[in-house]
Amino acid sequence: MSEVVEQSAEPGTERGGPPDAFDVFSRNCPSRATLEHVTGRWGILTLTALAHDTLRFNALRRRVDGVSEKMLSQTLQALERDGLVIRDAQPVNPPHVEYRLSPLGRETTDRLLALITLVEDRMPDVLAARGRYDEARGTG
Amino acid sequence: MSEVVEQSAEPGTERGGPPDAFDVFSRNCPSRATLEHVTGRWGILTLTALAHDTLRFNALRRRVDGVSEKMLSQTLQALERDGLVIRDAQPVNPPHVEYRLSPLGRETTDRLLALITLVEDRMPDVLAARGRYDEARGTG
Repeated sequence: MSEVVEQSAEPGTERGGPPDAFDVFSRNCPSRATLEHVTGRWGILTLTALAHDTLRFNALRRRVDGVSEKMLSQTLQALERDGLVIRDAQPVNPPHVEYRLSPLGRETTDRLLALITLVEDRMPDVLAARGRYDEARGTG
Repeated sequence: MSEVVEQSAEPGTERGGPPDAFDVFSRNCPSRATLEHVTGRWGILTLTALAHDTLRFNALRRRVDGVSEKMLSQTLQALERDGLVIRDAQPVNPPHVEYRLSPLGRETTDRLLALITLVEDRMPDVLAARGRYDEARGTG
């Protein structure tokens, strides 16, 4: 990761320069918005739901337990705009729309899956830590 | 990652069973909360800020550009409770408090860094995709 540098660009501004000019630590760097699309509650689940399948909207919605139609729609739009998800609309009647990962979406999702797998695998340790924390404070 | 399974546990409930019983796709699984602590806007930046250093609160706050005192405090508390961050308070006067990653926090942060590096490196592609998306919709 690059060092913290002053960024004068507004969010979403397209800037030139080498890739290491992007720095998620800087509040105005557009990489922070993309990181948030990828790691937001619904972004992360939507991307990983598409890891193994091309899915239609309703199938995706069933897979991402708890997401509303509106939130899933907004999430997909942000991911499509960032070039991570591809929306495939077949010109048939009734319309047939499918969502799948782009190559960059796949690379991103592979790294998300590595993180999720770790968190799921280590939840027993996390729950034990929570128990100790609460006990030490008399809130357990 | 495990398959979607029905979870009857309430959020935060401590459950037994093998690690693969945890599933971030299930809205009531406690792993979803931990994933959100780790991938929330301030969680991700706080963890990665601690990747190379033990830091005091104010140094951490300067590094995580844009975080408020209250949000950083809440973020650190959630990460400490999950056993990812260790809060070291030296019994001296004036008090000296430092934050550092636990071994599990380090493993988690390594995976976050892999994700962040990818996002930062590929921002030129993301910005190009955004340009195409906006142009196709006449909103660019």
